[in-house]
Amino acid sequence: MAERIDDLTWGDFRLIQNPDWFCFSLDAVILSWYAGISPGDRVLDLGSGNGVLPLLLLAREKSLQITGLELMAPLADLARRNMEMNRVDVEIVCGDICRGTELFPKASFDLVVSNPPYEKMDHGRLPKEPLKAAARAEVYCDLHTVVETAATLLKPLGRFAIVHRAKRLAEVIYEAKSFGLEPKTLLLIAPKPGEAANLLFMEAVKGGKPGLLLPAPLIVYGEDGEYTEEMKKVFRGPEGGTGWK
Amino acid sequence: MAERIDDLTWGDFRLIQNPDWFCFSLDAVILSWYAGISPGDRVLDLGSGNGVLPLLLLAREKSLQITGLELMAPLADLARRNMEMNRVDVEIVCGDICRGTELFPKASFDLVVSNPPYEKMDHGRLPKEPLKAAARAEVYCDLHTVVETAATLLKPLGRFAIVHRAKRLAEVIYEAKSFGLEPKTLLLIAPKPGEAANLLFMEAVKGGKPGLLLPAPLIVYGEDGEYTEEMKKVFRGPEGGTGWK
Repeated sequence: MAERIDDLTWGDFRLIQNPDWFCFSLDAVILSWYAGISPGDRVLDLGSGNGVLPLLLLAREKSLQITGLELMAPLADLARRNMEMNRVDVEIVCGDICRGTELFPKASFDLVVSNPPYEKMDHGRLPKEPLKAAARAEVYCDLHTVVETAATLLKPLGRFAIVHRAKRLAEVIYEAKSFGLEPKTLLLIAPKPGEAANLLFMEAVKGGKPGLLLPAPLIVYGEDGEYTEEMKKVFRGPEGGTGWK
Repeated sequence: MAERIDDLTWGDFRLIQNPDWFCFSLDAVILSWYAGISPGDRVLDLGSGNGVLPLLLLAREKSLQITGLELMAPLADLARRNMEMNRVDVEIVCGDICRGTELFPKASFDLVVSNPPYEKMDHGRLPKEPLKAAARAEVYCDLHTVVETAATLLKPLGRFAIVHRAKRLAEVIYEAKSFGLEPKTLLLIAPKPGEAANLLFMEAVKGGKPGLLLPAPLIVYGEDGEYTEEMKKVFRGPEGGTGWK
């Protein structure tokens, strides 16, 4: 176990990470970039890990009131240290998403975000390190439960923003609609031009009207192997405008 | 009412159309291009209109055994005349998709295709001409019923291929999964590079395993306003390979 401190590039935030457990990725940055936020929003991060999403979202809008829920005690502890190091007021709750509806009042959040474990339990071998396994696969909590918890804890017309593997799009949409979260924006992310999408960002609205916007995919690398201009904009962070603007 | 005869460009087929009712579009060509077919497949076209889909599919594979179901008698009559003019053996049934599961034996088709009416009944004013209205909006049959009928009439592991407005993607996926049709391929179609998708092609498998492939979108027009190379390939038709090949 060797902790390291990384620069988040957004704002002045830094992040303590432990590569033996989990390091934040492009996916967290994309989720934080495209999620719709309004000043003062009450935000819940389901499966907060080392707390990277709360920090990135605060870099966009410092008035957000964010709670991070994380099952694993060592990660929740790391997340708390990250909040202290960056001097931000984010509540980190160590607890189970499956019990999320008992931990928080129903219909109390404006926005729920999640970068959940991507793989089903029947998908290949799990990492031996339990924290790594829990971050990668649905060991403790599946997509169904994440969406159900989000739907219960959101206010009417509250928003649910998620990143997931593109191959699981049908399940993401099905679960969202099953729990009354209407998909409103779907951004597909592809590694290179002309390649199949491997990641998705979706935003759904609790009790929203049907009607989905499907912008052109975000392409990560150009033909030249360099990050695309769009991707560089995401990395530069919220100083020059955020998200769709 | 002024009928006209158009060249289908695929094979030697021609098509009698009545512009007062409905003319086939890009959407039918895209559906016929990307739908997975195998020699000898039993195919059902739900809402066959003037019969354009059966002709396009036969241009790809002449051994298909195709049935077209069309509610409107004048269109069913036109479809029959189109089959005669092109000397192909396609059964055109004049009947209601809502009663499709009584008209045909359950689990009897390998492939169900549909280019259904796109708009909900609450979406703006309807055309006065009843046949035009029925082709545009869900006057007689909604998405739910199309998918339910397809699911009932398909054999196990049979395929359902549909084109629809991109904005209705969430509903298409939700209905498909609700009736046990697992989305396997989703192609988004955008008018120009960088623009939001406005059309979708989806193929689902009855009882299939979850896991969706999302190829790069099909772009119709290039920056220069001309059809893209990919789109020209679709228009040229099946002589130089079909669909994904």
